[in-house]
Amino acid sequence: MKLSLNLKRLGIDTHNEAVIYMRRDCEICISEGFSALARIRVTLGEKSIIATLNTIENEILHHNEASLSEYAWKLLGANDGDKIFLAHPKPLHSLSFVRSKIYSNTLTEQQIKAIIVDVVAGRLSEIHISAFVTACASGRLNGDEIAWLTKAMVETGEKLSWDSELVVDKHCVGGLPGNRTTPIIVSIVTSFGLTMPKTSSRSITSPAGTADTMEVLAPVELDMKTIKKIVAQEGGCIAWGGGVELSPADDILIHVERALDIDSEGQMVASILSKKIAAGSNHVVIDMPIGPTAKIRNMEVAMLLKDYLEDTGERLGIKVKVVFTEGFEPVGRGIGPALEARDVLSVLKCEKDAPQDLRDHALVLAGQVLEFSSKVKKGEGKNIATEILDSGKAWEKFQAICKAQGGMREIPESKFTHQHLAKKDGKMLSIDTRRIAILAKLAGAPESKAAGIDLHVSLGQEVAKGETLFTLHSESKGELEYALSYLEESNEIIQIQSAE
Amino acid sequence: MKLSLNLKRLGIDTHNEAVIYMRRDCEICISEGFSALARIRVTLGEKSIIATLNTIENEILHHNEASLSEYAWKLLGANDGDKIFLAHPKPLHSLSFVRSKIYSNTLTEQQIKAIIVDVVAGRLSEIHISAFVTACASGRLNGDEIAWLTKAMVETGEKLSWDSELVVDKHCVGGLPGNRTTPIIVSIVTSFGLTMPKTSSRSITSPAGTADTMEVLAPVELDMKTIKKIVAQEGGCIAWGGGVELSPADDILIHVERALDIDSEGQMVASILSKKIAAGSNHVVIDMPIGPTAKIRNMEVAMLLKDYLEDTGERLGIKVKVVFTEGFEPVGRGIGPALEARDVLSVLKCEKDAPQDLRDHALVLAGQVLEFSSKVKKGEGKNIATEILDSGKAWEKFQAICKAQGGMREIPESKFTHQHLAKKDGKMLSIDTRRIAILAKLAGAPESKAAGIDLHVSLGQEVAKGETLFTLHSESKGELEYALSYLEESNEIIQIQSAE
Repeated sequence: MKLSLNLKRLGIDTHNEAVIYMRRDCEICISEGFSALARIRVTLGEKSIIATLNTIENEILHHNEASLSEYAWKLLGANDGDKIFLAHPKPLHSLSFVRSKIYSNTLTEQQIKAIIVDVVAGRLSEIHISAFVTACASGRLNGDEIAWLTKAMVETGEKLSWDSELVVDKHCVGGLPGNRTTPIIVSIVTSFGLTMPKTSSRSITSPAGTADTMEVLAPVELDMKTIKKIVAQEGGCIAWGGGVELSPADDILIHVERALDIDSEGQMVASILSKKIAAGSNHVVIDMPIGPTAKIRNMEVAMLLKDYLEDTGERLGIKVKVVFTEGFEPVGRGIGPALEARDVLSVLKCEKDAPQDLRDHALVLAGQVLEFSSKVKKGEGKNIATEILDSGKAWEKFQAICKAQGGMREIPESKFTHQHLAKKDGKMLSIDTRRIAILAKLAGAPESKAAGIDLHVSLGQEVAKGETLFTLHSESKGELEYALSYLEESNEIIQIQSAE
Repeated sequence: MKLSLNLKRLGIDTHNEAVIYMRRDCEICISEGFSALARIRVTLGEKSIIATLNTIENEILHHNEASLSEYAWKLLGANDGDKIFLAHPKPLHSLSFVRSKIYSNTLTEQQIKAIIVDVVAGRLSEIHISAFVTACASGRLNGDEIAWLTKAMVETGEKLSWDSELVVDKHCVGGLPGNRTTPIIVSIVTSFGLTMPKTSSRSITSPAGTADTMEVLAPVELDMKTIKKIVAQEGGCIAWGGGVELSPADDILIHVERALDIDSEGQMVASILSKKIAAGSNHVVIDMPIGPTAKIRNMEVAMLLKDYLEDTGERLGIKVKVVFTEGFEPVGRGIGPALEARDVLSVLKCEKDAPQDLRDHALVLAGQVLEFSSKVKKGEGKNIATEILDSGKAWEKFQAICKAQGGMREIPESKFTHQHLAKKDGKMLSIDTRRIAILAKLAGAPESKAAGIDLHVSLGQEVAKGETLFTLHSESKGELEYALSYLEESNEIIQIQSAE
């Protein structure tokens, strides 16, 4: 039983939700018993998706017309005027597996695969995906399930391969604003001769992801052909992973996690490792900052996550080395794409006033990556990394990579600023990294590249009343004002202890 | 910081999701940093909601215009041309409580109230509500939380009150197709003189809710004034609860549960009791069918739910009596609004061939309700109920109620039918009530009133090869064909045991 309508593009962007728009008085709606929020199978040529029906009571659609959200439009590869065929969808097996997970059952490899296949094919709605993400949160996935989820996410996307036998990578579990070591590490280890084709994500809940920051300095939305060419030439790149369909399920799940503002450990492991495996890396260093307001709050959670990451890596044939780092305060001075990019360049150029914490953090991690090489003895990595950075080779390499990616860019400056001053004399006691990240986001980061926060003090430092603690940067007046109202309402983000 | 746009109605129905449509190149989107799927605070006059942004790349909206989904339009009481003001929403406290529940924490009364207030006000998106529903499923709400959820659901809606001191009600936890006892019970107990202002829901996952079935016989979408008048006159009514804003949160949560096809015990208790309490009843009989394919599968789950219902009732000052009934096969013969309505009339009219199981079931429950009265001794209820039914008084009362609700209606007949025949001689061994319900839904029930299934055999009965087991009714050819393809693909819904 097939019924057809002609497509008219309305250009409605619903993000990752496949929506079909039909007239409320459409004969097919009535004869098929479709009503608002029904799920409908939509077929165009060889391709088929399941879309949520939104009915329209308006003349923007004629009687024989329907429209699709941009996401559905892209999934089906549609063109204006194309004929689509509509049918009732069969009950989805994957949805019964989601239900099974809601009821705390352990899923099989096949069941998890079925869910992820349907997520990627747009057959599950945001309601379904949110339920799946929630049902998997808070330790409800076991080791098997995490490995199967990771594998399913790799298998439902593209997979890259490289000529080199040893392909290294680095990932930070995040939560520490300004921790932008990747461009520095890639520059160092590719200078040494290792292959590090880095694909990074955009921010999930932070004011900037590596891709957001790198985009300030050079194009990051590269196609596969370009990436291959750059890696063959320079040994590495710093590209946005989303442009090459690596683990496409991850982007969809992350969108829902972002809306909920959660990061569950199982999904975190699957997210990290699926991207790495799909990107063709086989040796990965994972930077895990631990601190009271970082993403990983305590050693217990850190150890659990470390075990899951290493265990899942072993099951799936990728060597994972987790490095715990201190996560008590932001790394570097800037928070937000442009301000972080400025810090990165300062370290690469070995400027005198470069933030030493960012430099040291990058050298520790680069050293660990270098030790994957048979040419580097255990314990010698950091020294070699330091030599490469101080020699200027890393800075040269970084410029070469930017050039290969499309040319180095000028760092933009913000239009509006506000200086936040110390209210008393004293010593800087603590900083709430989670709330400073929220503040940077409210100021417009990462969508507004120049928006964010520039910190002028660090832990333990003596400050005087009236001294600037940090500068807020924004590209729109509305965002600056909104960030300021959050700043006024909340408790002090930086705690100062008086001398007496 | 406030920015305004003029409203243009596009009439897009997104069910319970508040969506704002803005041009992608709208200056406010750009200056405020709004992007697709941002959440935006929309204010019109005194009212404020949070809506999800869908951007439109099309000339259907002019530069100074925005549109809202019908749900948001209604929440704000909007008119074409109204000026709306837009702002970034503050982080929602309720969302942090949803997150807390995802991480398996026990919520406080205030936290649950905050979530439900925001659900009703349209401040939480479907992603958030789905996460909340999932996080509460599978036994993750304790007794306190269930009582607080129930209370919050009552308090965020309208509350009815009645002149009578004793206000009785009845509810079935569902899962048993055709179990349409309510119209019969209301007719009997109001004949006796009790007050039973019955507000029923439409179907959640079943082929017909009481409201769907009753609507075949008389109008059920009544305003409060009308209901009050009918109850004062007849002692009772059989109306749709959704029309009077009783526990509006329930309808929103149920919509998400329906999309997920789950019923969790905590939400089930809150859903049932919040509607009853809001409807002003203080004594409730709950019919709980138990069977291998009913909603309640075994005695363990039934006992748990009974405890939660009675315990929550006691905390909130409503007397709850749970009656376990057998749930091995559908009750009556029809499944679907019109076919069930036919069975109900047949019992009320005391016709000779009326389905005896439906009659007996209704009498047991009516008897239990009657025993709430101080005039009825324990154990005598069923006898009194039987006398009232057999005397014709219940049938007279039902006609009077239908008349008061707007007039009795003719039962519609379906356009398309298909007879499903026995493939061999033998004895009817079992029937999958869950799958027969799915079949009735695929045939179009409850949206198509005449659609559904008419069963011609019951458990234990001898059948001959070629005899009709059931007739499938449909109002559209597409739905009939779709139901038939499900029937062909699935195992036999009715198991026949051969004689040898």
